[in-house]
Amino acid sequence: MPEFRIVLVNPKHDGNVGAVVRSMGNFGFKDLCLVSPCDITEEAYKRAKHAGDILRKAEVVESLDQAIEGFDLIVGTSGIVTAGEKHYVRIPLTPCEFAERMKDYDERVAMLFGPEDTGLLQEDLMRCDILVNIPSSDEYPILNLSHAAAIVMYELFQIGPRKPGGPRPTNGQERERLFLFFDDLLDSIDYPEFRRERTKVMFRRLMGRAVPTKWEFHTIMGVFGDAAKKIKRLEKKKD
Amino acid sequence: MPEFRIVLVNPKHDGNVGAVVRSMGNFGFKDLCLVSPCDITEEAYKRAKHAGDILRKAEVVESLDQAIEGFDLIVGTSGIVTAGEKHYVRIPLTPCEFAERMKDYDERVAMLFGPEDTGLLQEDLMRCDILVNIPSSDEYPILNLSHAAAIVMYELFQIGPRKPGGPRPTNGQERERLFLFFDDLLDSIDYPEFRRERTKVMFRRLMGRAVPTKWEFHTIMGVFGDAAKKIKRLEKKKD
Repeated sequence: MPEFRIVLVNPKHDGNVGAVVRSMGNFGFKDLCLVSPCDITEEAYKRAKHAGDILRKAEVVESLDQAIEGFDLIVGTSGIVTAGEKHYVRIPLTPCEFAERMKDYDERVAMLFGPEDTGLLQEDLMRCDILVNIPSSDEYPILNLSHAAAIVMYELFQIGPRKPGGPRPTNGQERERLFLFFDDLLDSIDYPEFRRERTKVMFRRLMGRAVPTKWEFHTIMGVFGDAAKKIKRLEKKKD
Repeated sequence: MPEFRIVLVNPKHDGNVGAVVRSMGNFGFKDLCLVSPCDITEEAYKRAKHAGDILRKAEVVESLDQAIEGFDLIVGTSGIVTAGEKHYVRIPLTPCEFAERMKDYDERVAMLFGPEDTGLLQEDLMRCDILVNIPSSDEYPILNLSHAAAIVMYELFQIGPRKPGGPRPTNGQERERLFLFFDDLLDSIDYPEFRRERTKVMFRRLMGRAVPTKWEFHTIMGVFGDAAKKIKRLEKKKD
């Protein structure tokens, strides 16, 4: 079981913040970070009930960067799933699938929830390794912020503590290195600039969903690295 | 999938009633019954948001008997689980187990949620065919009423027919083609024979876990194909 931080990005109603805090207490989450939140009044503490301590200890920061610094895996929740597959940033896991993947993971995970009206912005979603979407009615798919958080935490609570002895998943640093290798490979094949960003995000999400082990990461990094190196070497000879 | 009625027994805060109603809208539940509720003010409609119609059409009754008349299965939710099995009314299912059991059921099911402070009373629980309990932290096990309802409805929603229009996963044939491309890439970089089988299986597993969409498959196949082709072309020139 990884270490989770709940990050509320720009929440607009402090009653909702309080309700999320109560859910954190219900499901054993302790680390809360608020990014440019609304004023936190008595209403929030009233709604937090016996979990008020989590709210008192919450870190309040000004930017998402500060909230996720040092975290290995960034997970975004999104209420909107577009139909077209090409909207590459939007292929999500259900909370249950997500919890399943967190079973053997033991790094630091930041879970982002966006503001009540807009949800997470596109630029925030681009930062995410994994997207989680709660299946809901087409007629009215947008959940209340605290309900969404409660459902995701409920699923995570059920996976319980990690069983020792399984293969170790990669950490954030290793993943970033793999992405550099993939980038290098794209360079070496003169991958078209206009498709590049999309393909890079696609690969990040693909790896986010697969949660590779250290061994898998090193193996695939080796293949990408060898291919890129070979192309460069051959091109040099050609000149 | 059975026909569900949500029954709120003696709710004390109409804001909570509104929040439950919104969740009903989110998860496609329409039939609400309120047993001796508090006053339903504007606050409830504000919290219900786009699901206000469900609240307007709710049946308001004075006793639990009236609420469940004509229903085949009565399901109670309870925040408290006693340890001893002898308290036979208190052996609960998790929301997930409950939803699983509802899959092939198609009678009329009434789901009861008790008041915020006490939960369902012993005499109400005695009426229930099934008890559902949401696993939660021992330190603070009591969930907000609307959160509990949201979690149970979320689980039930998922057993319903799968929504069309999501991203299409790849089929077996496409997957095999991707593996051929990966194989080609290994060829082109003269990947050592003794590690080859293991690396191929690793890649297959990785993709199996990620369950890529068609678009993702084609994109990554494009990258592998281009790399392999470029290496071959360059080697040819060299000769």
